[in-house]
Amino acid sequence: MDPTDPIERIHAALEAAVAGVEGGGCPPRLVAAVRHAVFPGGARIRPQLCLAVAAAHGDDDPALTDAAAVALELLHCASLVHDDLPCFDAAATRRGRPSVHRAHGERLAVLAGDALIVLAFQALAQAPARHPARLAPLLSTIAGGVGMPRGIAAGQAWECESQVPLREYQAAKTGSLFAAATMAGAMAAGGDAGAWRELGERLGEAYQVADDIRDVAADPEWLGKPIGRDLALGRPSVARERGLVGALGHFQQLVETAADAVPPCRGASRLRALVHSEAARLVPPAWSARVCQGLPAAA
Amino acid sequence: MDPTDPIERIHAALEAAVAGVEGGGCPPRLVAAVRHAVFPGGARIRPQLCLAVAAAHGDDDPALTDAAAVALELLHCASLVHDDLPCFDAAATRRGRPSVHRAHGERLAVLAGDALIVLAFQALAQAPARHPARLAPLLSTIAGGVGMPRGIAAGQAWECESQVPLREYQAAKTGSLFAAATMAGAMAAGGDAGAWRELGERLGEAYQVADDIRDVAADPEWLGKPIGRDLALGRPSVARERGLVGALGHFQQLVETAADAVPPCRGASRLRALVHSEAARLVPPAWSARVCQGLPAAA
Repeated sequence: MDPTDPIERIHAALEAAVAGVEGGGCPPRLVAAVRHAVFPGGARIRPQLCLAVAAAHGDDDPALTDAAAVALELLHCASLVHDDLPCFDAAATRRGRPSVHRAHGERLAVLAGDALIVLAFQALAQAPARHPARLAPLLSTIAGGVGMPRGIAAGQAWECESQVPLREYQAAKTGSLFAAATMAGAMAAGGDAGAWRELGERLGEAYQVADDIRDVAADPEWLGKPIGRDLALGRPSVARERGLVGALGHFQQLVETAADAVPPCRGASRLRALVHSEAARLVPPAWSARVCQGLPAAA
Repeated sequence: MDPTDPIERIHAALEAAVAGVEGGGCPPRLVAAVRHAVFPGGARIRPQLCLAVAAAHGDDDPALTDAAAVALELLHCASLVHDDLPCFDAAATRRGRPSVHRAHGERLAVLAGDALIVLAFQALAQAPARHPARLAPLLSTIAGGVGMPRGIAAGQAWECESQVPLREYQAAKTGSLFAAATMAGAMAAGGDAGAWRELGERLGEAYQVADDIRDVAADPEWLGKPIGRDLALGRPSVARERGLVGALGHFQQLVETAADAVPPCRGASRLRALVHSEAARLVPPAWSARVCQGLPAAA
């Protein structure tokens, strides 16, 4: 592997984490379901953020940074597996393949999600303890991104309430783990986490808006999962609230706010470039242009 | 509260852990589902074991012991919530009340289980860091009790395989978290965890055998949950494999092995008493007597 390529570094760390628990008498179908959920994976944006912020702080404990990156990505994968379950989105596809419950059954999808949540924390625990005092705050920050009161589980639980505050819902469902990713990168390298919260939160918000836009406007084959789910499930959606053109404008604004929130540091320009390249991947500029001309987004 | 009463100490620590995440904008139905899963609770045997072993080692960091005890109990509660789901046991009752999915719906049951797993690790992270070097091994041990390759999730996943090795299945489904409980008690107090594995494993095995016996022989009203599920779901069961009399004999033998596995320590007699009182609570001696006379266990 090329250790300077963040995607290869993330892949190697994820592979090592899964390999570390798949032997030793683990039931093979659980291993298969977990592997299905984690590989080949999506954009790996949360661990990429974590690595980039750690690099900005000198990345003096790369094994701890890797563990944090792995934990963030495994928790993200777990949330997708459970979110796709029949009682939630009932999504048949994810990343262009059958969803975990379609491929491996509902029971293994529940268990794979559970096991992935646990594996995230096993990965953190098993990083060599070069800086023992960093572990507790790192653990707390990452767990907060997925738990109560304002992490992903809370975000998904808003969908079970009769009144849904859109901003809190989206901040919990997406923003929280993004903020955990940027802050965890700083913490793993012994830096100040507070300076990185804003970047994560704005980027998470942009992601959620992009998701709403894609749910309305994307080609499902290109997207790799069904579209129109927010509407079908009566979920709050920025695209529904502001219209497609309004949502696209809001997305661009959030991306710029996120880029501006990168604090002064030696990796700042790389981080801003990461923000912009991710934005273009999420909502191709050609779409925005077509929608603003009154044409359908996906040709 | 009486700080010398372990049950009160455990209850106070659980209450503080849940209270710490239920404000701050958490969706109220998720809070209700989580509280339903945790309170009033069952015998709290895993946290009791953790406290008793920590006491045997001097319990020099009681906040860390509490955090470990809370984590163990929350993970146990999470496993019950998910195990009761329609795709697994489809249990309508638990501890004499509606199961979480019956009371709060399937989506909130999935999310409450997820949130409880995460809360277990949040509790560990938030213990005041008086002994930072203890956290990583403690986290690893507790997570190992519920994750892959041999924790609860792996145990439940054996139910999805065509060939189920009974011993590995039961060790993962029950023994692993019991062993984590005794070992975590030692680790939280800076003691040697290895000496406590055997007690936890044998006690966990005894619990699983008791569960199999109760599934066949108990009065469902007394038990607070449906009986006959192992048979209905085609699950491996010691009671089915050895017959009721054989299973009762095996149970008593495991209880004695567990009591004998208490290593020499100042709390040894208290720990042995805990083992025996739990055994009598699980399988009332009057039952064994009736079954061995060829009468039904529950009058």
